[in-house]
Amino acid sequence: MGVPSTALFTDQYELTMLQAALKSGTAHRRSVFEAFTRRLPEGRRYGVLAGTGRVLDAVENFRFDEDQLAFLREKKIVDGATLDWLAAYRFDGDIWGYPEGEVYFPGSPVLRVEGSFAECVVLETVILSILNHDSAIAAAASRMSSAAGSRPLIEMGARRTHELAAVAASRAAYIGGFTSTSDLAAGFRYDIPTVGTSAHAFTLLHDTERDAFRAQVDSLGQGTTLLVDTYDVAEAVRAAVEIAGPELGAVRIDSGDLLLVAHRVRQQLDELGARNTRIVVTSDLDEYAIASLAAAPVDAYGVGTQLVTGSGHPTCSMVYKLVARAESADPAAPLVPVAKRSTGGKTSIGGRKWAARRLDAQGVAEAEVIGTGSLPTELAGRELLVELVKGGEVLARETLDTVRERHAAARASLPLSATQLSRGEPVLPTEYL
Amino acid sequence: MGVPSTALFTDQYELTMLQAALKSGTAHRRSVFEAFTRRLPEGRRYGVLAGTGRVLDAVENFRFDEDQLAFLREKKIVDGATLDWLAAYRFDGDIWGYPEGEVYFPGSPVLRVEGSFAECVVLETVILSILNHDSAIAAAASRMSSAAGSRPLIEMGARRTHELAAVAASRAAYIGGFTSTSDLAAGFRYDIPTVGTSAHAFTLLHDTERDAFRAQVDSLGQGTTLLVDTYDVAEAVRAAVEIAGPELGAVRIDSGDLLLVAHRVRQQLDELGARNTRIVVTSDLDEYAIASLAAAPVDAYGVGTQLVTGSGHPTCSMVYKLVARAESADPAAPLVPVAKRSTGGKTSIGGRKWAARRLDAQGVAEAEVIGTGSLPTELAGRELLVELVKGGEVLARETLDTVRERHAAARASLPLSATQLSRGEPVLPTEYL
Repeated sequence: MGVPSTALFTDQYELTMLQAALKSGTAHRRSVFEAFTRRLPEGRRYGVLAGTGRVLDAVENFRFDEDQLAFLREKKIVDGATLDWLAAYRFDGDIWGYPEGEVYFPGSPVLRVEGSFAECVVLETVILSILNHDSAIAAAASRMSSAAGSRPLIEMGARRTHELAAVAASRAAYIGGFTSTSDLAAGFRYDIPTVGTSAHAFTLLHDTERDAFRAQVDSLGQGTTLLVDTYDVAEAVRAAVEIAGPELGAVRIDSGDLLLVAHRVRQQLDELGARNTRIVVTSDLDEYAIASLAAAPVDAYGVGTQLVTGSGHPTCSMVYKLVARAESADPAAPLVPVAKRSTGGKTSIGGRKWAARRLDAQGVAEAEVIGTGSLPTELAGRELLVELVKGGEVLARETLDTVRERHAAARASLPLSATQLSRGEPVLPTEYL
Repeated sequence: MGVPSTALFTDQYELTMLQAALKSGTAHRRSVFEAFTRRLPEGRRYGVLAGTGRVLDAVENFRFDEDQLAFLREKKIVDGATLDWLAAYRFDGDIWGYPEGEVYFPGSPVLRVEGSFAECVVLETVILSILNHDSAIAAAASRMSSAAGSRPLIEMGARRTHELAAVAASRAAYIGGFTSTSDLAAGFRYDIPTVGTSAHAFTLLHDTERDAFRAQVDSLGQGTTLLVDTYDVAEAVRAAVEIAGPELGAVRIDSGDLLLVAHRVRQQLDELGARNTRIVVTSDLDEYAIASLAAAPVDAYGVGTQLVTGSGHPTCSMVYKLVARAESADPAAPLVPVAKRSTGGKTSIGGRKWAARRLDAQGVAEAEVIGTGSLPTELAGRELLVELVKGGEVLARETLDTVRERHAAARASLPLSATQLSRGEPVLPTEYL
């Protein structure tokens, strides 16, 4: 569960570029890299930045240990001079970025990394891995929490994704508005509230469903959640209330037509006097299914597959580009904007950027404004980038709750159409000054 | 990079079920769990089992350490008796499964875990996380390697997925027929060949493209791969051959109409006498793009996003179900088949299963045959499950090359329609005896 060195979460070309630049004398040129996306996933109205906190950890832990250096040496991936440089590596530069949980749009410079070319270029892959994964999950989570309104959302997707991606997914889901997770590793690592009671296997283990319910209530108390769809739902609900009493915490429905079954179960629970017993549903939900259950008597949603796979968009298309560099390491040397210019697409805009969100008279966001040079005075106070790392030192750590609240506030400041689930254009235009 | 305890890659309900079963006395009932999928992702012709080797590691490392037990105690997730049981946990049961790299179909029991209910139930999440992730990537990789024919495939997706999922993805891609990876962590962990030379940032760092090419060739030799689409491709190819000489290793094209550009670049390279200089293409490729480039003069493909996101199917739908259990721990007590029977869907077939692949007279696979009880004599020698863990001891470790070769052989034994990229039904029917 610990985070050992992150230094090999690196594409080989970063180290071969480093080697060539060390030899040619360009490695120490002062450089500015920016992470941004050229577009949102098709149809999405806004992006959600998640992973920044993990990026800060990864940058701090980006140190090559003996075994890693031996690997690079034995495989002849880089030469001796480069190995010496890597052995002493620690990031000494500056990082600015959108605060984690903020929304973003095409072109938003969500992270800006400044230092020598050498020290910045080697961070490319690990930064993109984290931002692309975590932001994809947070965006899906935000749409789901928007659809769920005040009803709690349980993250249950660990089994549908890589075991450590799952932990990061729980974190991103929490930022996006989820309430809890089934994943104990996420509870352990990030102190996210964990939940869970029983599966069909528990019912099948016992000689009868009633035996199983009795065993569960006996051990976990009447506040537990009983799973009622192993055999016959109506029969199970009757047995559940009989065994646990009308103070039974909840029942869970994991299959079938959830709208129909939830209505029937609610009616039956009420007739049995279990008016406070909640109904949890958990079968292949996504934001559309959640929205379609808004009128159903459902008290909580458990979401798995669609959350951890980004609800159709399992990655973002964040890139990490050199946007400006000086002729030397001298802080006084002017930065020269640079950009790929081939006609084949994938062009970007050079120069070290600021970004601000312009609000209308009602305080509703109306544009993402991006430029180089100095911020126009009319956008004073609306600058989005904050300083995260200064001279290699991480300036501040935030709690997940702070980040989660920031996301809720950022989403609330967008035009109402942001929360429409239907496909559409980004809800804010990106304006370049 | 090490693999510490995997014990918290666990959904909370596994431990609460354990607690209730320990109390009711059912925890020690001899049980059989099976991992299988009810369907392949829509349109896919076959599944590829990957992750088994990682599952064996995860089972061996499924031990609760002091910090993890303290977390469970402080959060009151389970009671004291359960904590004591977990503190002593090690898996002592048996595991059978399809050999890694095999193909599978709906219903194929790709992993069977036998032991007490308690010791088997807690492994559910970590087993599913691994198989669902790795098999999704391997299936995409297999389609891509099928489309690429004899041309090498480079895995370059680390930046598009979680940093540790990326390492597992490289492993799964290699099993599915990829040749190498850009991900140094995957080279370090699994000894997969790594490759990589330079990105656009390297060209932009230098005052001119020629300066960049000279610096790269100077450091990495004329066998290197020069990236030729930062500014003007034709000009870059001319400069590349001028600087590196006609023995230049390769050029890389990362944008534009790859078919058109590859033809032009090949012609230009030939005219410049660089007949052995290879062309590597790397822009948003998937199996369809690879197939469409079959007639282009391309020597290698680099694949990122679509590989690590499973080319539209980032997870499988493997489940881990209790299929049989006895009344006690006694090995002589008969196993009773069990299965969810609710009318709401998600039903499965109870009983401890065998599986065999029936071949036709030409030796081509014609059906996946699954049954309970004993294997029919006409299927002797065609049994698919092999013993992986006996009494808690892992029986054998395989090299990735063995697994990769097995996959190639298994795919080759399927009807030819298996390698059609178009959507269709599973290429073998599943027959239940």
